[in-house]
Amino acid sequence: MIAYLVSMDVKPDAIEAFKEASIINARNSLDEPGIARFDFIQGQEDPARFMFIEVYGTEGDVLAHKETDHYKIWRETVAPMMAQPRKGVRYDVVHPEEQAWWSV
Amino acid sequence: MIAYLVSMDVKPDAIEAFKEASIINARNSLDEPGIARFDFIQGQEDPARFMFIEVYGTEGDVLAHKETDHYKIWRETVAPMMAQPRKGVRYDVVHPEEQAWWSV
Repeated sequence: MIAYLVSMDVKPDAIEAFKEASIINARNSLDEPGIARFDFIQGQEDPARFMFIEVYGTEGDVLAHKETDHYKIWRETVAPMMAQPRKGVRYDVVHPEEQAWWSV
Repeated sequence: MIAYLVSMDVKPDAIEAFKEASIINARNSLDEPGIARFDFIQGQEDPARFMFIEVYGTEGDVLAHKETDHYKIWRETVAPMMAQPRKGVRYDVVHPEEQAWWSV
């Protein structure tokens, strides 16, 4: 399994629009069969800082996500809202066991 | 709900011992009634970089975790393994809905 953590800093006047577009993306992404998790969280200290915690079964599932309409629409919609380019870091899952990640 | 993301950089020769101690902590933490998630992941590019994704119901649950034996034992065990002090950042949960976070 692959956990992909994406950090995003958005322009302060775009926070609400960014949340709206990203909730739609998160909801649709959770319906992809290769996605176990697509958490969307907002910084407490800095409410213009957001993260996606995306958890995939395989590399193929990562590639499949990038081909979906909801990803492409999200990417185009939020591009002008970003204060700086988003940053993604990949992790391997250590715990819990694989099955537990699919229970959402 | 509160998501607490903890970044940890460990000394290269302590990676396996750190994983062992942290898996025990993650497993016991998931048994706490106030903890919805306690994910433990390891960097793909930098295997000495780890993260906990800790998701709590309330601030009281965060405090309760810090009083548990398993947390105190983990903290003492891994202290000499850290390459630098660990960093925690708090987030509010935006999506999915609260109930979904408790299904692990």
